[in-house]
Amino acid sequence: MQRFEEACHKVLTEQANQALQYGATEGYTPLRELIANNMARYGIKVKAENVLITSGSQQALDLIGKLFINAGDRVLVEAPTYLGALQAFNIYGAEYVSVPSDENGLCTDQLEEPLRSGPKFMYVLPNFQNPAGTTLSEGRRQELVLLADRYGIPIVEDDPYGQLRYEGEHLPSLVVLDRENLRRDEGYSIGNVIYLSTFSKTLAPGLRLGWIVAPPDVIGKLAQLKQGADLHTSTFTQFVAYEVARDGFLDKHVKVIRQVYRERRDVMLQALQEFFPAEVTWTHPQGGLFLWVNLPKGLDIQAVFRSALEQNVAFVPGDSFYANDPQEGSRHMRLNFSNATPEQIREGIRRLAAAVKSHLTATTRRSEMTLGV
Amino acid sequence: MQRFEEACHKVLTEQANQALQYGATEGYTPLRELIANNMARYGIKVKAENVLITSGSQQALDLIGKLFINAGDRVLVEAPTYLGALQAFNIYGAEYVSVPSDENGLCTDQLEEPLRSGPKFMYVLPNFQNPAGTTLSEGRRQELVLLADRYGIPIVEDDPYGQLRYEGEHLPSLVVLDRENLRRDEGYSIGNVIYLSTFSKTLAPGLRLGWIVAPPDVIGKLAQLKQGADLHTSTFTQFVAYEVARDGFLDKHVKVIRQVYRERRDVMLQALQEFFPAEVTWTHPQGGLFLWVNLPKGLDIQAVFRSALEQNVAFVPGDSFYANDPQEGSRHMRLNFSNATPEQIREGIRRLAAAVKSHLTATTRRSEMTLGV
Repeated sequence: MQRFEEACHKVLTEQANQALQYGATEGYTPLRELIANNMARYGIKVKAENVLITSGSQQALDLIGKLFINAGDRVLVEAPTYLGALQAFNIYGAEYVSVPSDENGLCTDQLEEPLRSGPKFMYVLPNFQNPAGTTLSEGRRQELVLLADRYGIPIVEDDPYGQLRYEGEHLPSLVVLDRENLRRDEGYSIGNVIYLSTFSKTLAPGLRLGWIVAPPDVIGKLAQLKQGADLHTSTFTQFVAYEVARDGFLDKHVKVIRQVYRERRDVMLQALQEFFPAEVTWTHPQGGLFLWVNLPKGLDIQAVFRSALEQNVAFVPGDSFYANDPQEGSRHMRLNFSNATPEQIREGIRRLAAAVKSHLTATTRRSEMTLGV
Repeated sequence: MQRFEEACHKVLTEQANQALQYGATEGYTPLRELIANNMARYGIKVKAENVLITSGSQQALDLIGKLFINAGDRVLVEAPTYLGALQAFNIYGAEYVSVPSDENGLCTDQLEEPLRSGPKFMYVLPNFQNPAGTTLSEGRRQELVLLADRYGIPIVEDDPYGQLRYEGEHLPSLVVLDRENLRRDEGYSIGNVIYLSTFSKTLAPGLRLGWIVAPPDVIGKLAQLKQGADLHTSTFTQFVAYEVARDGFLDKHVKVIRQVYRERRDVMLQALQEFFPAEVTWTHPQGGLFLWVNLPKGLDIQAVFRSALEQNVAFVPGDSFYANDPQEGSRHMRLNFSNATPEQIREGIRRLAAAVKSHLTATTRRSEMTLGV
């Protein structure tokens, strides 16, 4: 808060005239530069003009929907995938081709057929996926980029959590592999990948600041759409975010977040191990915020949800994350380990396990009764 | 700035947890209440639940486009009308029915035929219109509301400048007349008018804070679209704006703005009178930011624009403000009297007059030559 206060003070005393005025649709140049520099350390070498500031990542999804999707167009998505993306694309009348994923992310061996069906683009979250918490393996990343290029299908790479890795090595982004593998132009003037990220998980979601990285002609088109959508993102929040993030503060802050969230993830994994019955499995996220729980078949997820709520524990039932077949999600729940203390997490998982167990027994009992008929 | 600084300090010390977190799509409740209370003094009696906070008025236009317009649908607009609205609606494939306006605003006697053609809605700026600076007369307001009701065409009333009146009496909003004339339900649960306004002209455009007032079912639909578009408007800027505006500050500040802008308007009107040739006429805005200049036929507006730029004076050529026939705008220029000092305005108009005169002579000379052929 100290840092935010100092940033507000500086912006309002030294730059108030600009910070409270209209600004460029593309965003505040120093912030775009800071983002470009920051991404370069993850191998994504771009210039400020490749960066479009958006009003949160959600707006990035909306602008991409606006640019690519006409009613009835197909979008290739993972199953499960991020609910907010489906909400953004649905408005433009998107239909979906879903490709299953496993613990190594999108199953690229099942990708050719869907790519052949001519989707407008594919939407993937390679790092610590929302909702599944899985990470796309390096081999599959290579394959994905090559297949997308072969079929001429653009990739939208959504990477809100990429900096929040708690174990293992950073894996190259699709936007980087696209350039390396396909020897794209150094200046990122062409390319098959549109990359999205955000300050929501590293600075503050309430700022609503995200960004799109793309070749200049795509940025130009998206900026035109953004101009019609909200003219530009709040100059004030952009100036404040820049002052907060600059001079290495963002890096230091991300390190703190990593430490806090890693501990919370570990507590949740441990509690799941301790309290959940053997029939239940879950993913082991290497980063991010989410963990995906697989329940035995036949369990009524909505009943589990109600029981959990009675115990003041919430989760997101899996059905919202499937574009084509919500039923597929009915055996899953998404848990968020980032927004509670270790004590709360442990107690929450204990209660959730009790709720699950009570319904497991009921399910078993029902089966027995059925068998008995 | 003092007030903004105090607001930031308060928000970050007392409410940082909420102000930097995700918030409700509809907006920050105290801000929605403040807006509702503020509008009540202009006769617009609504509750907080009738107010949806948007990322500037531009987003309100975008959401309305999204809700109403399918490709090929017609929108009824004034000629001329606000460029930003056309940009927002164009993206959804809008076509336009244009109705001319004069010094008393939209010519309602030419409205029936266009209304019969079945536009999805009509978009009007009754107060100090952008770009023309004209105000819709009270009689025409009554007529407009009754006609819209008769043909079942919703009205989108855009009112960014309503509080910035420098002379004359406040005229009732369409949303108020709609309710009074048609004896709509007191609680504003039904109604034919969607009303838009913004803090951009009264607090700061860089905050990107606007709002939509509508019956709850319309607000519900728009909020759903907003959720897909950007989740919600920055909680931080909403909290800060609330702290700045509360306890009567907004009113006091609006009074100051009125005084400053009135003086600037008067200086511009006087300078126009003094420097411009008799063939040129202009509107006399009772408020707002803009003034509309009518040049003699045959003048090359782009040539005037280039000459003016050479003298470091800019205006917006009128052609951008016509939905169907840009050529109609080629005799007009929009001048903004709000963003320069009286001295700059006087000098600017002097230079602009010189630019216009030089081309007037050229035009005359060309005519003479033509006549001489």
